[in-house]
Amino acid sequence: MQLLKDRILKDGYVRAGNILKVDSFLNHQIDIPLYEAIGNEFKKRFSDVEVTKILTIESSGIGIACITAQSFGVNVIFAKKAKSKNLDSDVYTCKIDSFTHDKTYDVMVSTKFINADDKVLIIDDFLAKGKAALGLIDIVNQAGAKVAGVGIVIEKGFQEGGVALTNQGIRLESLVVVDSLENSIIKFR
Amino acid sequence: MQLLKDRILKDGYVRAGNILKVDSFLNHQIDIPLYEAIGNEFKKRFSDVEVTKILTIESSGIGIACITAQSFGVNVIFAKKAKSKNLDSDVYTCKIDSFTHDKTYDVMVSTKFINADDKVLIIDDFLAKGKAALGLIDIVNQAGAKVAGVGIVIEKGFQEGGVALTNQGIRLESLVVVDSLENSIIKFR
Repeated sequence: MQLLKDRILKDGYVRAGNILKVDSFLNHQIDIPLYEAIGNEFKKRFSDVEVTKILTIESSGIGIACITAQSFGVNVIFAKKAKSKNLDSDVYTCKIDSFTHDKTYDVMVSTKFINADDKVLIIDDFLAKGKAALGLIDIVNQAGAKVAGVGIVIEKGFQEGGVALTNQGIRLESLVVVDSLENSIIKFR
Repeated sequence: MQLLKDRILKDGYVRAGNILKVDSFLNHQIDIPLYEAIGNEFKKRFSDVEVTKILTIESSGIGIACITAQSFGVNVIFAKKAKSKNLDSDVYTCKIDSFTHDKTYDVMVSTKFINADDKVLIIDDFLAKGKAALGLIDIVNQAGAKVAGVGIVIEKGFQEGGVALTNQGIRLESLVVVDSLENSIIKFR
């Protein structure tokens, strides 16, 4: 997606530890027209796939999922990191190791919101080791539903997430794949 | 907002501890057309106010803020609960006591994203004791910017948040005010 590549080169930068910072437009400040373009691009790429629900995980996937859902005409569910007194007892759960936050989260989705008929499109901002996406796939499987695909805004192609998903036969669409951040230079695939 | 009252009565329910559960349409599963109606309603209520940025706090405010931002034609910033290795060092911070999660969060917004010229509309799903809204107001003040107003989807009118905000001279628009949840009966103002 050229618009996104151009924006990453213009406003993104690299931090120590292979961290690509895109917080001025993607995951802290949010450029809404860019989100709309991202949503339209996901719809184009998954136009041949039936989607009944979009699933993401808090926090930075939520906005992208909501605006993408406008293109698909479906509801969004966001998986919650377990910490709230307010969650239901009837939940699908999985554990997700977060590299960014250096901890393991228990993640949950109420069983009420995914059923066996659903075709679930999983949306997230980043794919690196693939832990979040694999956890969400596990939750969709627990519900007996079908994973329609995984849509990622920025895939770190030098980490193993992409291979892990495609090895499972998952349809993966990454709008941009970054192949290297070495020497603070952003190289796209 | 009658559409929202009707939906709360239809799909919301009350849990022990004065918790109003609206997770089937507002803050776990998300009904996108309802979010669009909410965004349009905020735009209508704040039509006389200049807004240059929308500020919310992760997680459940993000989707509402993004879709509301479409009506205002502005960017969104979401304040982050401090836990990430990826946050900048130049940040506005405040502490927010969360009743729901029974802990105190350090919350931060990068100084890059709010400047003294901004007129900031604060958006969130719930207002109860007002801790999150007051923290976000503090952050806007630290930036030397102006609070254009606070837009809340559901205000718990039996808690002190609404009074705390209006006592500070803040323009508050709550789409629905719940005055009581006693005996599991939802009473609107």
